[in-house]
Order: sequence, then structure tokens, then C-alpha cells
Amino acid sequence: MRAYDIIAKKRDKKALSKDEINFFINGYTAGDIADYQASALLMAIYLNGMTPQETVWLTYAMACSGEMIDLSEINGIKVDKHSTGGVGDKTTLIVAPVIASLKIPFAKMSGRGLGHTGGTIDKLESIPGFSASLSSSQFIDNVKNAYIALTSQSANLTPADRKLYSLRDSTATVSCIPLIASSIISKKIAGGADKILLDVKTGTGAFMKTFDESLELAKEMVMLGKNLGRQTVALISDMDKPLGNNIGNSLEVIEAIETLKGRGPADLWELCDRICIQMIIMAKGCTQKEARQMIEHSIKSGSALDKFKEFIIMQNGDDRVIDDYSVFSQAKYEYPLIAVRSGFIGSMHAESIGRAAMILGAGREKKEDNIDPAAGICLYKKTGDYVEKDTTLAMLYTNKPGAEKEALKILGSSIKYSDNKSRMREIVLAMVTASETIVYGLQKN
Amino acid sequence: MRAYDIIAKKRDKKALSKDEINFFINGYTAGDIADYQASALLMAIYLNGMTPQETVWLTYAMACSGEMIDLSEINGIKVDKHSTGGVGDKTTLIVAPVIASLKIPFAKMSGRGLGHTGGTIDKLESIPGFSASLSSSQFIDNVKNAYIALTSQSANLTPADRKLYSLRDSTATVSCIPLIASSIISKKIAGGADKILLDVKTGTGAFMKTFDESLELAKEMVMLGKNLGRQTVALISDMDKPLGNNIGNSLEVIEAIETLKGRGPADLWELCDRICIQMIIMAKGCTQKEARQMIEHSIKSGSALDKFKEFIIMQNGDDRVIDDYSVFSQAKYEYPLIAVRSGFIGSMHAESIGRAAMILGAGREKKEDNIDPAAGICLYKKTGDYVEKDTTLAMLYTNKPGAEKEALKILGSSIKYSDNKSRMREIVLAMVTASETIVYGLQKN
Repeated sequence: MRAYDIIAKKRDKKALSKDEINFFINGYTAGDIADYQASALLMAIYLNGMTPQETVWLTYAMACSGEMIDLSEINGIKVDKHSTGGVGDKTTLIVAPVIASLKIPFAKMSGRGLGHTGGTIDKLESIPGFSASLSSSQFIDNVKNAYIALTSQSANLTPADRKLYSLRDSTATVSCIPLIASSIISKKIAGGADKILLDVKTGTGAFMKTFDESLELAKEMVMLGKNLGRQTVALISDMDKPLGNNIGNSLEVIEAIETLKGRGPADLWELCDRICIQMIIMAKGCTQKEARQMIEHSIKSGSALDKFKEFIIMQNGDDRVIDDYSVFSQAKYEYPLIAVRSGFIGSMHAESIGRAAMILGAGREKKEDNIDPAAGICLYKKTGDYVEKDTTLAMLYTNKPGAEKEALKILGSSIKYSDNKSRMREIVLAMVTASETIVYGLQKN
Repeated sequence: MRAYDIIAKKRDKKALSKDEINFFINGYTAGDIADYQASALLMAIYLNGMTPQETVWLTYAMACSGEMIDLSEINGIKVDKHSTGGVGDKTTLIVAPVIASLKIPFAKMSGRGLGHTGGTIDKLESIPGFSASLSSSQFIDNVKNAYIALTSQSANLTPADRKLYSLRDSTATVSCIPLIASSIISKKIAGGADKILLDVKTGTGAFMKTFDESLELAKEMVMLGKNLGRQTVALISDMDKPLGNNIGNSLEVIEAIETLKGRGPADLWELCDRICIQMIIMAKGCTQKEARQMIEHSIKSGSALDKFKEFIIMQNGDDRVIDDYSVFSQAKYEYPLIAVRSGFIGSMHAESIGRAAMILGAGREKKEDNIDPAAGICLYKKTGDYVEKDTTLAMLYTNKPGAEKEALKILGSSIKYSDNKSRMREIVLAMVTASETIVYGLQKN
């Protein structure tokens, strides 16, 4: 078998066999196949596509390219939750303790953020002392004892995906559904969970800008999970505007704590609720109504909040943050964004808001950049709200003198005013399972 | 400007600008752009094509990537002759002395052969002592004094093309008309000739297997030459069967000498005659009839043969080969191929015959392989001839004990018999100029 013939086959729009895909992925991971051959194949895949069967084989080959995590020591059904990434997405910080408080194991490996979307580990590390570097035995023990643990991704998980992703990133072959789907699902398969709940973001702040693309990606991932023996359900959720009101690491942890206290923003809570319902149904096989009651009880009784506190303590964080937000590092500078006119907010461009937060210090432009846990943005008004001229729309926090100038400019121009309140789209737009796709309400961007 | 954006643009089927093409070619030649980015762009070009304007810019960028040969010291119009390569193609050995004998400068840079087609330099080096390594001043002086010189290609000619060609060779992006055409024409532009005569081979022994592909390539190259200020004419010639009867280095030189003596095979002579006519018209602006008369005189008077002798002496070869073929190194072993039945030869697969000759030692499979000047095949019968069972069809020559077994097997199965003489296609199938395409007689393979 030769890499050349595999490239030529895909170039000629033919489907690759399982053996050919394995040969290419194993050879590339081992360094026997050169980057320039892999990038030619990636471009051919980008332009000529892959069949569902090829995508399944590619996903499995990448999953098997490195360590395969074994969670079988942990009793119960382990449901992994994955978000495709958005601005202000702190759902894991809320969903994890709710799920764990119901004695459903929540064992998550997570990554760091890059660009305009933040990573869950970056957010948690804004809690003084918090550590996301657990040994595998610590990780398993924590889930066994307390149903919850979160660790950074093993360096040897899906090395084929890591190499290919970095190659795609420099050869303009990222935005290709089979390649995106196989990249995500291969990591979930190697991560060892029994079932997968996907939160596929759609809109200006998401990787997938349109509902149709997001639906296509969701369907592909659900199909992949199913064909690799993991029940997979995808929710498609709105990312035209940021999720919740706070963007930035400690600001998002604070908002998550507020939500666990039962007083979070409506959109954030609704999405968390929907994710938790689906995960509980997948783990317990109960009805939607039963799942909803369990969640309500977990929040009302304070057991979800207690679980979050326990989780912080187990991972060496300072649990005083639960009751005293001044324990977080504080930003030196704060600046208001003032409304330039009265009217309704017609839209806010989520990606631009993410970029503004990044400029303030909340995110990384390059992998090696440091994150400022205190930097970020609190939105006082969001799409659909009425604002009075000269009132404060948002507050910006930073430790970088002068960074507010560009951030205020970007943030200001990300907001469009309107004389009339436009019809808003749902927070959860659709649900995709292996057997059906349910689309809710208004989908337009 | 970023390589990434250029790749993305071509991926999205958009035309690249002159600046973008220059940026990519210069960056790649300098090593600032990685192989894996270049191969992604090549695959995108392969699948999405290039406009004629893009191809012109690409060709010129590659031509300018290294040394540009200056032939302006040589008086007269320099017409370069280029063949896309075939089995038994020794036309340059005949055309060059005919042209030079008419005091038209013939200044050629040539390459070595790879695979089933031989290189002109390999053929000439079968003449004991012959050297194709001329300094540029020797090269120019020889053409000034004797109108003829042939040298191996400068190491610094079109380095961009050399890098890209080797990359295409390992990423399945060779067989793409704009890339083939720009690769050939960039070398001709850098080679400094005023006009270009192309011999585009078509058929089983050629790179282009079908007439339509060959016509497309010819048109693209003629367009490129024209747009880069060099009048270019292409002949499309048959390569379903080998050209002439001899395949192998010294065997081909012998056949060329026989042809210069006026007793070469009809197909070989007809093609050489047509090429010479076109080159003379391009160089002198005379009529076809006048050109034909000049050629006839050159052969009949012996001045073409004398010119070949002078050429051999100038490049340190042993000129006794002209009259005594035993001066060439001789093969130790010879084997006949015997006709298995009586009948007409319906077809001979030229590429297979080229491969059989390569196995005997006449060609290189890999760049580093050595060539045996004495190895090769003499065909006694060709397509259209009637053969009697048990008579000799061809004679094989080799110095490798045992190599004949595979060669005889390939050669035997490359010949198809027929009860009826089929209609043969012309040796010159078409001529393409900037203003017209003339198609002659039967084109089918």
C-alpha cells in the first residue's frame, strides 16, 4: 500500500477502504507519511468529501492512534458533554455539579481556549489554587467518591488528530464537516465515555455560522457516535449573542455560581436545564418530567452548589469563592460602554464581543499567550432589550492599560440598534438523535 | 499576504492574482513556504483548475525563479524543440544536425530520461567520450561557430519548477494540464530561445494517452508561449507504437545516423521532416515548399550527417561511430522474440515496450539508476505489418543475465495480432498554432 495511491484515489472522488484509512492514519502518526502527503489528502477530502462509512473509519483510526481511556472502574453510565465552543459558554461549570449531585458520574477531560472562545479549564483556573492536572488514578478516584472530576486532556490522546488538526490549521482545510466531526468524536471515543451529549453552537460567535451547517455537523457527529457504539444526542443552541451576561474567566465562574444559586440569566439557565435533562435521560433512562424534577430539586435544595464546592476543594481550589467573589483576582481598570442612542438592541455580534474580551486579556490569540483571570466583559443589556441613550450597556474589566480603547470600539460596533423589538430565536434550536431531528421555533440568523 | 489565504482562495475556486502567485512561488523557492502548504495548493489547483491568465503568471513566476539563459549573443532566431517524451523518440538527434546544417542556430538544453521514455542526453552519452556538460561560454561559442550545441540543464534553471515537480510526483498532482504546461513552458522561457516548437506525444507510450488530452495540453502550451512573447507551435504525434524501430540508447543513435544517411524508418523520418519544416519556417519565414527543399538537400548532400559528425567531435565524442557501429559498447546477450501466430500486428503497447527496454538496462526506474548504453530492443515488425508464425519479431539486447525473461514476457503480451490490416493513424495527427488547430486524418487510439 502506498500513500500516493490513497491520495490519488480520493483526488479521483473514490471512497477509501478501511485498510487504506488505517494505513494513512497510522503511517502519518508514526511519521512515515510526510506532512505534504497528508495535506494533499486533506485538501482532496475537503473538496471531494468522504462517505459516512469513510468518516466512521477515519474517526476510529484517529481514536485508536494514542491512549484509550478506560472508565470501566466507575459504576454507572458515563455521559460526556461536549460544546463546539462559544462566547460566554460556562455551561459545564453548571451542568457538572447538577449531574454529579444526582449521583450520575461526570468524568470530563477538557481543553484550553483559543481565539474568541474560552476553555473550561481556563475558567476553573481563575479559582485560586484550582488544579486541572489530575493523575488518571486521582481522576477515577474523584469520580468514584464524589461523581465529579475534570482534568486537562492527556498529552497522548488522539495524537493523529492533534497532528492533522495543526496541519489543517495551516493549509486551509479546517472548515470541512467530515474532518470537524471526526476530530471531535475521535477524542470522545478515546475519552472512554459510554454516551455523548453534544452542544453544537450556531451563529455569529460559533465556528458554524448558519443553522444548516450546524445541523449538518450535528447529524454527522450523531451518526459517527452511533456507528462507533456510543449513543449520541446533539442539541443545537444559539450563539448569535453571548451565552449569559458575563464573558471572561472569573466573571464566568461567578455567573455559574449565581446560576447554581438559582439566580442566573434566563438563557444560560434554560440551556443548562436542557443539557442536564438530556444527560439524565441518557444516564438513567427516566422520563423528561422526572429529569426536570431532579434538576429542580438539586438547585432548590442547594445540593448542586454543595457539589460544586466539594469539587473545588477536591481539586485544590479556594472554596471561599462560593460565598465571596472578592477572593478572585480583581481587575485594576474598569470602563463602561455607553449607549449612543435609545432603542432596542437588534443584534450583538457574539464573535466580536469574544474578541473584545480577548483583547482585554480574557483569551489567547496564540497558544503561548497568558490569560488574565480577572479580565472580561459584563453585559447589562442583550439582544431584545430596550436601552436609554447614555446609560451603561456593559462594563469592561482589564489589567492592561489602554486595552479598553480597541475593546470599546469593537464592542460598540458589534451592537446594532433597532426601533422595534425583533422576534428572538430560541436558545435551543434543535435536537438531533440517531432516529430523529426535532427543530424548535425560529432558526434564522 | 499569507500562504494560508492563497490556499483558501484556490480551494474556494477563485482566481489568484499575479501578486499572490509570485508571493507563493518566491516564498516556496526560498523555503519560506512549507512543502505541506504547497502540496495543499497543488491539490486545490488540480481539482479546481487555473484560468489561462493564472497559468501565464505561474509559468512566468517559475521561469524567473532561477537563472535566465541569455542567448542574445547568438545571431538569428533560436527555435527550441521540445518533446513531451515517448518510446524510441530520437528526433532531436536527427532534427538538430539538419537545422544546424542550414545555418539556423540549434542551442538546446536537455534532461535525462526517467521511466519508460529515454532522455536525449542519455542517448548521446552512448557515443564513447561524448560530453553534455558544457560551460555556458562553451555552449554559446559552439552555437556561434557551428550552429549546434547540446548541454545538460543548468542546476539553477527554474528551481521552483524542480521543487514543485518533485512534490507533485509524491502527492498525486502530476496529471493536471495547467501544471504540466507551466512546468514545460517555464523551462523553455528560462532557456532563452526566441520561439518554441513542441512535439506533443499522444497514445499508449505517451504521458497523455488520448488525443483530446494531448490537444488540450498543446493548446495550453501554445497559449502560454504566445502570452509570454514566444511564438509557439505544437505538433501532436502518434505514440501508440514506438517511434522508429530501435529502442535503447546506442541503438537509437545508430537509427538516427541511418536516418541522416537517408535510410531511416518511414515514420521516424516523416516526423523529423515535419518538425524540421516547422522550425525552418519559424526561423526563416520561408514557405513550406522552400523548407522541404532545404531539408532534402541537407540529407542528400550529406551536410546533415557531416554536421552531426562535427557536433560529436565538438563535444568530445568518438566520431568513428558515424561509419562503424561496432565502436559502440556491445551487449553480451541477445534474444529473439518469436511470432506465436501468423497475421497482422493489430497494435503494440508502446509503454510496455518502453518498460521491457528499461528492464533490459536501457532506462532508469529511479533517478540514481545507471543506464546501459548497449541494452535495448530492435523491432523487425510494427503495427500494420504482416508476420509469419515462428519468425523473429524483435531482437532484445542486454548485459543483465536473466533480464530477458521478464522483458520477453512483457514484450510478447504487448503485441496484439489481427486477421485484417486495420487502418493506421497518421504519425503527425494535428498542428496547433496561436491562431488555428489543424487536425489530420484518423485520431482514434
